[in-house]
Amino acid sequence: MTYPAFGFVTPRNMALLMDLYELVMADSYLREDMNEPATFDLFVRTLPPRRSFLVSAGLEAALHYLEHFHVDDEMIAYLRGLGQFSDAFLDYLRRFRFTGEVWAIPEGEIFFPPEPVLEVIGPRIEAQIVETFLLNAVNYQVMVASKGARVVLAARERGVVDFSPRRDHGADAAMKAARASYIAGCVGTSNVLAGMEYGIPVYGTMAHSYIMSFPDELSAFRAFARDYPTNAILLIDTYDTIQGARHAVIVAQEMAARGEQLRGVRIDSGDLAPVSRQVREIFDSAGLPDVQILLSGDLDEYRIAEVLARGAAANAFGVGTALGTSEDAPTMGGVYKIVEDRHGPKIKLSTGKATLPGRKQVWRRQTSGGPRDTIALEHEAAPRGCEPLLVNVMAQGRAVRPESLQEMRARCRARLGALPQAFTDLQTVPPSPVGLSRELEALQGAMFQKNETRRRP
Amino acid sequence: MTYPAFGFVTPRNMALLMDLYELVMADSYLREDMNEPATFDLFVRTLPPRRSFLVSAGLEAALHYLEHFHVDDEMIAYLRGLGQFSDAFLDYLRRFRFTGEVWAIPEGEIFFPPEPVLEVIGPRIEAQIVETFLLNAVNYQVMVASKGARVVLAARERGVVDFSPRRDHGADAAMKAARASYIAGCVGTSNVLAGMEYGIPVYGTMAHSYIMSFPDELSAFRAFARDYPTNAILLIDTYDTIQGARHAVIVAQEMAARGEQLRGVRIDSGDLAPVSRQVREIFDSAGLPDVQILLSGDLDEYRIAEVLARGAAANAFGVGTALGTSEDAPTMGGVYKIVEDRHGPKIKLSTGKATLPGRKQVWRRQTSGGPRDTIALEHEAAPRGCEPLLVNVMAQGRAVRPESLQEMRARCRARLGALPQAFTDLQTVPPSPVGLSRELEALQGAMFQKNETRRRP
Repeated sequence: MTYPAFGFVTPRNMALLMDLYELVMADSYLREDMNEPATFDLFVRTLPPRRSFLVSAGLEAALHYLEHFHVDDEMIAYLRGLGQFSDAFLDYLRRFRFTGEVWAIPEGEIFFPPEPVLEVIGPRIEAQIVETFLLNAVNYQVMVASKGARVVLAARERGVVDFSPRRDHGADAAMKAARASYIAGCVGTSNVLAGMEYGIPVYGTMAHSYIMSFPDELSAFRAFARDYPTNAILLIDTYDTIQGARHAVIVAQEMAARGEQLRGVRIDSGDLAPVSRQVREIFDSAGLPDVQILLSGDLDEYRIAEVLARGAAANAFGVGTALGTSEDAPTMGGVYKIVEDRHGPKIKLSTGKATLPGRKQVWRRQTSGGPRDTIALEHEAAPRGCEPLLVNVMAQGRAVRPESLQEMRARCRARLGALPQAFTDLQTVPPSPVGLSRELEALQGAMFQKNETRRRP
Repeated sequence: MTYPAFGFVTPRNMALLMDLYELVMADSYLREDMNEPATFDLFVRTLPPRRSFLVSAGLEAALHYLEHFHVDDEMIAYLRGLGQFSDAFLDYLRRFRFTGEVWAIPEGEIFFPPEPVLEVIGPRIEAQIVETFLLNAVNYQVMVASKGARVVLAARERGVVDFSPRRDHGADAAMKAARASYIAGCVGTSNVLAGMEYGIPVYGTMAHSYIMSFPDELSAFRAFARDYPTNAILLIDTYDTIQGARHAVIVAQEMAARGEQLRGVRIDSGDLAPVSRQVREIFDSAGLPDVQILLSGDLDEYRIAEVLARGAAANAFGVGTALGTSEDAPTMGGVYKIVEDRHGPKIKLSTGKATLPGRKQVWRRQTSGGPRDTIALEHEAAPRGCEPLLVNVMAQGRAVRPESLQEMRARCRARLGALPQAFTDLQTVPPSPVGLSRELEALQGAMFQKNETRRRP
């Protein structure tokens, strides 16, 4: 049985991919008879440096975890061996299934802190112990989708291919980087397994070692052209990029004489803007305007914007390390906090770590200045001209409204296309477009006051 | 069947977690009859910022991949559908097994750029197409082990616990972060599944939401103490840390009256140095010197060194985001390059991307100034007083000399303990202790000259 939501893996069972304290608290809640319904919000407190918006991603893996969560006998035996859990709790855990409800901002949608991207409603223990995995799944994919959107915007309609697997943080990251960056608008990935599992287009050319394995560059190009008569992209910078381009012209003309066509060349080093222009001219002068130029080599959104501003001739970009690790902002500080229980709305007070109480909805109004969002309590009426962002994606422990990657990708493309320049600029961050409803603001204020009173009796 | 080397997962089959170009080149090599023996080195070109040394890790996952590599029928069908591979190659791939030899610097050993941490010798195609996965597995674990070693050194014999799962880049990263940081000297992890799969000690206390789920802090502490009479660590900073410590004293005294003992408290916010000292004094004055203090909250090696320098009272530290993402240096630029084929040693010339030709051994001499390493050609005689770092870990496609995590961890502990201050300082990076043997240097020089000549005819 395959579990596509986790990527390529059949997890033996990922249920216990959680911080131990989830179980420690859960056992106590069970003993204290505190398993009544509660609501938890997964949200990001503040934008990472240089980010103007976030892109929702990772929901499918989160829902899959919830839907299939079970603790098997081997796990129970391990937990029993730790010597700190009650038999009653271990019996409860063996039968445990997630039965709750989830609302979420769909994958591919743009959102902003501190909007809940996921809201989990269920018995307290069920909603609590899934915290670690939900954060792990959502934090990383939101991070890569948000980075990917920037790279895609910088490339201005040129294709961007995910080249990150060798630098991603492990195997699961390589799969999720391909998926999340595809949602964000990349045209494909170099990762064959991601292509197979997710139906993402795959791209690949050759390494410098291929060229070096032949007596000279021209022999290498000729062999490759012979083996890939319709699909050859030649790497031309192993020795000297301009000489490489001339060798590629020779091979392209030999191919043309055979009725074949050289697809393109890749340049992976050097001063990409002038070099790519020279290469473009060499092909154009040789009557080969259809040969594509793919640029790669330590690229990110800043370098892509820079080389394009300097007139680079590029049809596509391969982006690796910076994309899969979100190198300039490699952590996404998503948190998962209780916002309501049987006593009503809950609030956390710590400075800089405050939470918004109660079950919520996020309402978006499209304006000429971009999206304007209002975080409101769930029971409040829809503000005029607004669309709700949070939709019901799981009921009674079963996922509802599954979407295809293509739907998520189309949503993201539409949203990015509608963003005004203030949000797509790579260097400056506009003011937050998020406000609170008057009722939510009043509730938060009242709770602050009440809690302050309780703390200083 | 479980595959512990990959962490928690039974990979459905990770063979195709590779860049497409590996297969593109491999098909061409097969057609061109170029599957003769070759040698590839996996090495890091330069230290990441602020790093003085690297710690080897990730070897087990790499060897597991090589040992179990096979492409199944579903994968062949997918590849056939891409329409670019020859039938002969797909037949070859279906029967493909890795039959080569691997030498490596054992996990837990300290090493330096540009020493090969892994050397793969096998038929060219076999050694080439495993590139992506080997880099993915080794890059991340080396990165975390190297970061973890810094955190462990900064904590000076106090325990460090991996708290990173919620911020790691996906599920596999959470498992590998626990493993690699344990090799580096952490005392355990919060990740239950890593504890179960790897036999790593697990640690967990409670979240602020636990405290907030009771009418007041004292009720929460009392409930927790009742449920965990031997193992309770109370989180005391939800409302006011000093008041929290006083509440913990009340509970500790109630426990003592019942013949139980409070294990410790955790402080997750505030100015940790003075606050932890105050908390320590509160417990000491109350006759509770055995109550441990665990500090957490956005810690890394710099903050740990700083709070200790300012007199923090800490028995242990929980370190999350910064450890699992190596936040200040989130990418490890390991590369995998051909260094020898049937024509002899190979070299790459590009500026800043040069490679060292030929099969190698790395020789280490321990001096009072720390390790002094020499990279030599494999056939050279052992220099006097030196130990070889590269050992044979796979022969004819089968792993040899498997080690336990405890052996790797003990090795790392011994090596870190022997490092002079120049290498353990967190801010400054000493000069590289790595040189080349005269023979390797001469070979590299001669090849540079020959290739330069070839490039400028």
